[in-house]
Amino acid sequence: MSSVALPTQHAAVLYGAKDLRYEQRALWPPQPDQAQVQVMATGLCGSDLHYYAHGRNGDFALRAPLVLGHEAAGIVTSVGAGVKNLVPGQRVAIEAGIMCTNCHYCKSGRYNLCKDLRFASSAKTFPHLDGTLQERMNHPAHVLHPLPDSCTFEQAALAEPLSVLVHAGRRAHLSEGQTVLVFGAGAIGILACALAKARGARRVVAVDINQARLAFAKDNGFADQVFCLPAASKPKTPEEALLRAKESGDRILDKFEQADGFDVVFECTGAEPCIQMAIHTAVTGGKLMLIGMGTRSTTIQLSAAALREVDIMGSFRYANTYPEALELLGSGKLPNLDKLVTHRFALEDTARAFDLVSRGADEHGRMVLKVMIGPASSSAQ
Amino acid sequence: MSSVALPTQHAAVLYGAKDLRYEQRALWPPQPDQAQVQVMATGLCGSDLHYYAHGRNGDFALRAPLVLGHEAAGIVTSVGAGVKNLVPGQRVAIEAGIMCTNCHYCKSGRYNLCKDLRFASSAKTFPHLDGTLQERMNHPAHVLHPLPDSCTFEQAALAEPLSVLVHAGRRAHLSEGQTVLVFGAGAIGILACALAKARGARRVVAVDINQARLAFAKDNGFADQVFCLPAASKPKTPEEALLRAKESGDRILDKFEQADGFDVVFECTGAEPCIQMAIHTAVTGGKLMLIGMGTRSTTIQLSAAALREVDIMGSFRYANTYPEALELLGSGKLPNLDKLVTHRFALEDTARAFDLVSRGADEHGRMVLKVMIGPASSSAQ
Amino acid sequence: MSSVALPTQHAAVLYGAKDLRYEQRALWPPQPDQAQVQVMATGLCGSDLHYYAHGRNGDFALRAPLVLGHEAAGIVTSVGAGVKNLVPGQRVAIEAGIMCTNCHYCKSGRYNLCKDLRFASSAKTFPHLDGTLQERMNHPAHVLHPLPDSCTFEQAALAEPLSVLVHAGRRAHLSEGQTVLVFGAGAIGILACALAKARGARRVVAVDINQARLAFAKDNGFADQVFCLPAASKPKTPEEALLRAKESGDRILDKFEQADGFDVVFECTGAEPCIQMAIHTAVTGGKLMLIGMGTRSTTIQLSAAALREVDIMGSFRYANTYPEALELLGSGKLPNLDKLVTHRFALEDTARAFDLVSRGADEHGRMVLKVMIGPASSSAQ
Amino acid sequence: MSSVALPTQHAAVLYGAKDLRYEQRALWPPQPDQAQVQVMATGLCGSDLHYYAHGRNGDFALRAPLVLGHEAAGIVTSVGAGVKNLVPGQRVAIEAGIMCTNCHYCKSGRYNLCKDLRFASSAKTFPHLDGTLQERMNHPAHVLHPLPDSCTFEQAALAEPLSVLVHAGRRAHLSEGQTVLVFGAGAIGILACALAKARGARRVVAVDINQARLAFAKDNGFADQVFCLPAASKPKTPEEALLRAKESGDRILDKFEQADGFDVVFECTGAEPCIQMAIHTAVTGGKLMLIGMGTRSTTIQLSAAALREVDIMGSFRYANTYPEALELLGSGKLPNLDKLVTHRFALEDTARAFDLVSRGADEHGRMVLKVMIGPASSSAQ
Repeated sequence: MSSVALPTQHAAVLYGAKDLRYEQRALWPPQPDQAQVQVMATGLCGSDLHYYAHGRNGDFALRAPLVLGHEAAGIVTSVGAGVKNLVPGQRVAIEAGIMCTNCHYCKSGRYNLCKDLRFASSAKTFPHLDGTLQERMNHPAHVLHPLPDSCTFEQAALAEPLSVLVHAGRRAHLSEGQTVLVFGAGAIGILACALAKARGARRVVAVDINQARLAFAKDNGFADQVFCLPAASKPKTPEEALLRAKESGDRILDKFEQADGFDVVFECTGAEPCIQMAIHTAVTGGKLMLIGMGTRSTTIQLSAAALREVDIMGSFRYANTYPEALELLGSGKLPNLDKLVTHRFALEDTARAFDLVSRGADEHGRMVLKVMIGPASSSAQ
Repeated sequence: MSSVALPTQHAAVLYGAKDLRYEQRALWPPQPDQAQVQVMATGLCGSDLHYYAHGRNGDFALRAPLVLGHEAAGIVTSVGAGVKNLVPGQRVAIEAGIMCTNCHYCKSGRYNLCKDLRFASSAKTFPHLDGTLQERMNHPAHVLHPLPDSCTFEQAALAEPLSVLVHAGRRAHLSEGQTVLVFGAGAIGILACALAKARGARRVVAVDINQARLAFAKDNGFADQVFCLPAASKPKTPEEALLRAKESGDRILDKFEQADGFDVVFECTGAEPCIQMAIHTAVTGGKLMLIGMGTRSTTIQLSAAALREVDIMGSFRYANTYPEALELLGSGKLPNLDKLVTHRFALEDTARAFDLVSRGADEHGRMVLKVMIGPASSSAQ
Repeated sequence: MSSVALPTQHAAVLYGAKDLRYEQRALWPPQPDQAQVQVMATGLCGSDLHYYAHGRNGDFALRAPLVLGHEAAGIVTSVGAGVKNLVPGQRVAIEAGIMCTNCHYCKSGRYNLCKDLRFASSAKTFPHLDGTLQERMNHPAHVLHPLPDSCTFEQAALAEPLSVLVHAGRRAHLSEGQTVLVFGAGAIGILACALAKARGARRVVAVDINQARLAFAKDNGFADQVFCLPAASKPKTPEEALLRAKESGDRILDKFEQADGFDVVFECTGAEPCIQMAIHTAVTGGKLMLIGMGTRSTTIQLSAAALREVDIMGSFRYANTYPEALELLGSGKLPNLDKLVTHRFALEDTARAFDLVSRGADEHGRMVLKVMIGPASSSAQ
Repeated sequence: MSSVALPTQHAAVLYGAKDLRYEQRALWPPQPDQAQVQVMATGLCGSDLHYYAHGRNGDFALRAPLVLGHEAAGIVTSVGAGVKNLVPGQRVAIEAGIMCTNCHYCKSGRYNLCKDLRFASSAKTFPHLDGTLQERMNHPAHVLHPLPDSCTFEQAALAEPLSVLVHAGRRAHLSEGQTVLVFGAGAIGILACALAKARGARRVVAVDINQARLAFAKDNGFADQVFCLPAASKPKTPEEALLRAKESGDRILDKFEQADGFDVVFECTGAEPCIQMAIHTAVTGGKLMLIGMGTRSTTIQLSAAALREVDIMGSFRYANTYPEALELLGSGKLPNLDKLVTHRFALEDTARAFDLVSRGADEHGRMVLKVMIGPASSSAQ
């Protein structure tokens, strides 16, 4: 079979730090159990930005050109042999991770911990698995999730970051009538607030150092109340840092008359001072969820959690969350979530989109929260 | 009513640091819903020792003379009005904590977190509630637990520290076929090993710096294997400490060919280097249980837990554990647990017992694990 | 102390079947740990009606005059010694059951199963404990629950029946994105629908034999869709009944294109044909919650549940649900729930209210769902 | 490729009711991700017997010749491409079910409920998947489970029926110190008793109509106590049956002074009178596990469970149980479990083995519990 017979498509391919090329590539037909999807929306994520800016994300460096993007949705255009759950024309969200399905983690419902999971757009495994910043991609049908009719492609792309919170929320047993504190009012923090509201939280408070983000959170009903952390000089010793964290934590509890602490605390900043504070703001017997952790060491008053049975739990990606996240996004319960998407670009302008994300604000000074990449402007639909 | 009508009894009463007096006191009849218990065995605990040695335990200082002791069992001698579940002559374990029964924690099954819990032998609440180092005590009937016939008083006294582990084990979902690592081979660590064996752990490994303790753990079948941490110079920086902890943790995993880590790790030392190590020895998706934490700050590689969904959970005392602990102690499944009791004293010799515990070894150089106080030698039984 | 010193109040006291007397009674001050509450709203319940109509409810017959009513809210007027969580003037919902607080069930968070629980308005225990159909009542402070500001007294009275569903929903792990089928569209069934919606159910379907009830459920947004069971001749044999149940169950699944069944099925009728149907309408691995069961025997295709791991779970009253139910009622999430209250009476007209409930429709032919009894019309507020 | 190149092996192939032929067949090499296993032991199960005796098992009839057998263990002889977790020579237990790995049930840890699961030795799916009554078989490597060194092949074959109980025990939250009642003292009932003992049950009582089975259960330490149900005339009406069931249930509770009922009841007979009884013997808030249900209708006093929150739960096969079952079998905790194997045959004598199982006792009148089929007698090892 001659390769000239293959159709082609465009992709935004990263060759190295800041070397993103908009290329034409051959398009293979879907293999058995795969579907081919025309990608309609991809949200850019912090890890995408790390790859773009540095050619690596933490320990994982590019070893070959890589297509980024893993918060995405599109339209099924064809299906491979054996695919029964999807038909061409169907609108789907793309779950980027492909688990091995055979290991203990996969079989027991925790496939996010699968050691052989390959994640589209990540350089962790090799050969790398390309992400969604291309016109079309082939992907296993069982990780493509049909959209509710009421759910747009952009909303469906948000199902990925929302899945992170759905997963964390399940681990934390987030439930009706709870009080919830969220450190960080970026995209992930906002989604944490939104999920807490959808779950019936009695009170949601957001904390950040950025007043604009907090205003966004409050004005759009994600947070009931907000708290802006004051700028402070760097503490001179770890002891001083811990002392300040205790004081700041207590100040938050006082301000919101939440003497016993919050039922669930989502730490979405990864910043050490916030983690240090967070431990004091969870109620006795409550949960501290660490989301989007960096990899540094942390000095904390661990006993302040342990002796009060505050569980310190991390969450890594998600498992079995897409249907619930899509349902939530399509339910109309979170009407302002669309405002999270502050900027939009066509596929061929992906490099410009990354540059904007790097800067954090656009030329009008408007805050960048979530940037969406749509189809190539030349695409016929 | 004249007080001369009251019978008297003896008690070991702490008046201040190292000021323990063996006194005669009036004995009141049991109040409604109380039973009176002749105390037959009391195990001495680390917190008792702190009070004895310093007149305080952490933040809680004596404000009045206090009877110590809370690991105890005895015989019901009389019951107050309304008591239906007990009769004189019945053998019982004494659960030292008296919860408020009305708060959210009490009503939802987590009475160990009750903020109004009064704990016999503790100076946290005032007036203090006297402990079990007396001939008889009155105590609410609903926290007195009948002994299985096969359970001795000393075994029943061990139900208190074993309860700490039963509670921690429940929180960790300790179950059949798991691999378990225990930091610390003192009385609590040994009980952690014993519980893990009783729950059907596939492998139990104990870690300590004390070879004699490890030998005891291994020779008596509590641990399948042991690891003696080598003496080391103090690390110069926090970074060095964390690096060493990672290396030590990896060394433990290598030695026991447990590449992915242990399913459950019980940290029973409270020592920072052990906590730092422990985080690396739990399997992805596993549990790190912090038991017997001190109150210092701790610098840890928190992300090494969070990104692998290793839950860091403390445990504080216990709730609803006595029946299960007593069942286990009386079942014959842990035949060597009696060896945990290395020394015994009569009630009037309690001060000498504390002095022995302080020294850690007796005049023959024998290790002190658990010291039991029996009835006064003059007691008629 | 002379009883003439006591103030008096009015109460609706049941002396026997249909013998309800509006009487003046002495009003005692609240005892230690009690508060006195001016009752502002009481909803009438099916069990109240049984007592009123027959002088008994199932096995439990009146042995002395009894004040009915247990779905209630009011205002604290005074507090007894030791009450710290309430002050006069505070608005509270009255949780009618008083658990022993000392048994295994109470200590482990399942106080609804307490064998010594005394329930205000029930003749199960003797002396009976009077219910809320009186101007004021004394009740333990720890089972009085402060109202959110946004929650009216009538809404708070609904916290009792809603608690039944909150409890059942917890047992069923009711959660976001599920499909829910509810048999019975009376007050309890409507609340089941409402809870499912509040929990984010993807689809809620109500089934009844009464078209008016179904219309109410659908028009007010409690159910997304409804199914009216057709009238049918009585089956001649148990086999025929089971066969029909299977056919009807399948018809429901077909109609709603829910081939695999519903995630959670709430059976709120207690009728055998519905239970027989319900078992076939739950998804493999799902839950069938039996609510408001009668005490008859039931012939069911038990294997149709067992072999598909459909858990058949009853629910008995509730434990630790009031705060969550009140939060939900005050949240504005269930805007039409107020319409559940179809009729209102003053306390002195309680007998007329019961007569209306017995008839099921008022003189205008309007359906009776929930009837509320307010304060006596003479009450000064 | 010529088929003469393939090696051959022997298999016991069922062609129809009582038509079992010992045949020579071609042996294919293992496909990618498969291993080839020399089968060393297969236990015969009730469903095997149904196929043998009737050519069908309930609704599932043979549509082509089928190799029975699914309780098995053996030695890996070769591995296909991509197999990393096994090497030739390794001893493994064979998990007979091959799940789809892609559906919601598989991804969420409940693969036993997978609708596309193919089960070796079952005629439910077509083409049928052959079972283990052959010399060698190819099977996916991820459902082959390495044996602990201390576990024999016959013990490993028991891992299949024990898995049924491990799964049921997990669903029932079977745990230390509980009281357990088992209806039925056949192989499954005995394994239920054994598991309960291993999990630390305080008391295990077995009920049967067969005194010999009960004696076996008691003499070998599986049950602490036993109860032989008396022969009884057939009840004339369903009401009489239910009344008798209540009386019998109460008699059991009386006899064993278990007034409140047993914490967990395993119903392993599938007989209606036992199910009717069982419901009354579970403690308030306890669990009734239905194991090995037939498919008939059942008339039960459903409210006796529902109003006491006794959950009625079925269990269907198992998921993620083999490692735990093998660990338990190899642990030495259940020393008498080997006695469950009452008779042994070589592969070529499988038909004779089935005839023996049909009769229920051998020519010496000895009870048949579990029959094991070994390798063909001609096999060189």
